[in-house]
Amino acid sequence: MATHFYTASSLDGFIATAEHSLDWLLKQDIDEDGPMAYPAFEKTIGALAMGASTYEWVMRHEEGRWGYTQPTWVFAHRPLTVPEGADIRVAHGDVAEVHSAMIEAADGKDLWVVGGGDLAGQFADAGLLDEVWVQYAPVTLGSGAPLLPRALDLELIDVARNRSFMCGRYRVLRGPGVERS
Amino acid sequence: MATHFYTASSLDGFIATAEHSLDWLLKQDIDEDGPMAYPAFEKTIGALAMGASTYEWVMRHEEGRWGYTQPTWVFAHRPLTVPEGADIRVAHGDVAEVHSAMIEAADGKDLWVVGGGDLAGQFADAGLLDEVWVQYAPVTLGSGAPLLPRALDLELIDVARNRSFMCGRYRVLRGPGVERS
Repeated sequence: MATHFYTASSLDGFIATAEHSLDWLLKQDIDEDGPMAYPAFEKTIGALAMGASTYEWVMRHEEGRWGYTQPTWVFAHRPLTVPEGADIRVAHGDVAEVHSAMIEAADGKDLWVVGGGDLAGQFADAGLLDEVWVQYAPVTLGSGAPLLPRALDLELIDVARNRSFMCGRYRVLRGPGVERS
Repeated sequence: MATHFYTASSLDGFIATAEHSLDWLLKQDIDEDGPMAYPAFEKTIGALAMGASTYEWVMRHEEGRWGYTQPTWVFAHRPLTVPEGADIRVAHGDVAEVHSAMIEAADGKDLWVVGGGDLAGQFADAGLLDEVWVQYAPVTLGSGAPLLPRALDLELIDVARNRSFMCGRYRVLRGPGVERS
């Protein structure tokens, strides 16, 4: 069982514009059956965690439909509108407790921290983030929501090109105060 | 003749820490004869441009020796200590004028904007930046000097792995107000 932060990013390390837009990303060309693409990754995932901004973006983008079948924890300090039939739990506070619950729910499959970057950072701080997968879109944004606002050492596992995207898969080695084997 | 911004970066888009350190970069493993490595790139270059902070980092790091044989323009608003025998010109203001002088000096070879990110951005603003090459080191820094603080569309030319590094080569397509064919 591994916990992944799987995300797209601009070349300069932003996962959304300051206005929460992903237009720069959605206009890019990708082969959904190609290397490191989402459909194959998603099949390995048994539970999701995301922040409130990410959740609200998904809800706006999908016009209120919820596309995930896996149990999902949304970290929020504000009330959430949850669509009928969606397996969504609102989480507060400590990621370690949520991580334990996610493992239990995932039934042997991996966990996905969808975003944002600070939530992935909280998992890393707790020594609970195993891998970072980044698909770099061929844009710079200049400002926006940071990819992973932490100082971390990683190890490059794999590199691939998928049409417009340069894709890297990394193992998290250590952050400040956290040693991982 | 093309103008390249060739640089290393953290995964989260920083080319140096806030304290101007490159320790996170210099500890990484790279094959100098491998894809997109510096020695082959440097052979194509006829003139260099860099900002004052980049220049001062090079001087500190190289203990006052100047390793470049190409004519170099340093954009500075402060006096510079220039080593004996180095072909260094202090530049002010408009990058377009300097670019013309660089072309003349480069004798048919390409131009390299060494850094920092804002200087590369100024070349892009003027429609004078053709390519961006980024070697991503397997670290996140969380803060520091930004890779390229502009909103730009690029086209992915090539992807390679060089040991610890994921390397991308991009063509600059357009920025705000600048259309390039």
